[in-house]
Amino acid sequence: MTMQTHINLAQIFSMDQKKRALFINSLSGFKSANLVGTCDQHGITNLAIISSLFHLGADPALVGMIIRPDSVPRDTLTNIKQQGVYTINHVNVDIWQQAHQTSARYLPEQSEFEQVGLTSEYLAEVNAPFVEQSLLKFAVNLAEIVPLNINNTILVIGAITDVLLPEQSIQSDGYIDIESLGTVAVSSLDSYHATLRLARLSYAKVDLPLRELAVDGLTR
Amino acid sequence: MTMQTHINLAQIFSMDQKKRALFINSLSGFKSANLVGTCDQHGITNLAIISSLFHLGADPALVGMIIRPDSVPRDTLTNIKQQGVYTINHVNVDIWQQAHQTSARYLPEQSEFEQVGLTSEYLAEVNAPFVEQSLLKFAVNLAEIVPLNINNTILVIGAITDVLLPEQSIQSDGYIDIESLGTVAVSSLDSYHATLRLARLSYAKVDLPLRELAVDGLTR
Repeated sequence: MTMQTHINLAQIFSMDQKKRALFINSLSGFKSANLVGTCDQHGITNLAIISSLFHLGADPALVGMIIRPDSVPRDTLTNIKQQGVYTINHVNVDIWQQAHQTSARYLPEQSEFEQVGLTSEYLAEVNAPFVEQSLLKFAVNLAEIVPLNINNTILVIGAITDVLLPEQSIQSDGYIDIESLGTVAVSSLDSYHATLRLARLSYAKVDLPLRELAVDGLTR
Repeated sequence: MTMQTHINLAQIFSMDQKKRALFINSLSGFKSANLVGTCDQHGITNLAIISSLFHLGADPALVGMIIRPDSVPRDTLTNIKQQGVYTINHVNVDIWQQAHQTSARYLPEQSEFEQVGLTSEYLAEVNAPFVEQSLLKFAVNLAEIVPLNINNTILVIGAITDVLLPEQSIQSDGYIDIESLGTVAVSSLDSYHATLRLARLSYAKVDLPLRELAVDGLTR
């Protein structure tokens, strides 16, 4: 048995800012790691790592992300508002360090692509850069900006349009094997993790035992 | 080189509902796996797995989660509104199957704790059950409910109050080693993953190379 400790609100409050940031950011569990690609009206590209992207709905296909207007990805938000389109690119085990480096405070006229050594890639119909080295990426049209007054953050909601990925990662039931693409997870602010699948599980029913399923959702 | 395929909006639209759900839910990347613990006015406990919990802010300490009013965790939302408090409990490698089973459609008068074989645990000051078998858990006061009209989901924002976890998982800089607690990640709707830390990384600066750090944030 490991001893359980109880951290109360007063103790959270008394932590210094950096310590509290690392501690509280750990609590929600593992997070997605994505690069947001945008460009400005002059075609200067921007790339920012975010760990706040989340699934919002499948029909219509929507993703949300939280942006802090007073923190680093200011260019990202400006570009999204101006151009109305952005790309989301999975961070994988080959580019996690370059992805992290995009969080340095480069100047607006500097492209993070060049600065960190990633390559931009385009679809004719999408006015935003994809990351060539990312194996799963998609374009998103800005759908709604929801200010969250409780802490002055902004919820950016986007509609998924075009998805680029290796055909063989898509299983027959629609599941995408993102582990096979080397997609990483993040914990807290700065820790990156590869993953090891335990199993897929059957749809839970009240009177049936669960079955473990292989990645194809069918066998085991 | 793996061949990249392009799935456009028309193709997404033409997928049947189940396939689209698995496909779109894969796109955001790895998600957190948490159990939400609540109770109703009669003290009947409820437990629901969610993969939509996300960090919203560290000061004040806030988490958000997306709830779909027309899907399974209806009791959860009702209880949160009534009692104003809930618990968040990390799903770990020892309880991932029981956690998944909470998504079966049990009756309101059935407690998922009993049905799936997990144990409730209480703090005197918190009117909601924790999961004994979870190694990192915290209490949350309902702070705000934000209806997202774009797809009729609800963003539930809560303020973190009390955190329970093993003391040795907290590093001196505040980072919590959730991998050492067996916390799992989810992909799409039904795939569970253990993790393997690549490294922590130093704060990114424009003119400095990144350094890989050990779990304590100091050495390597």
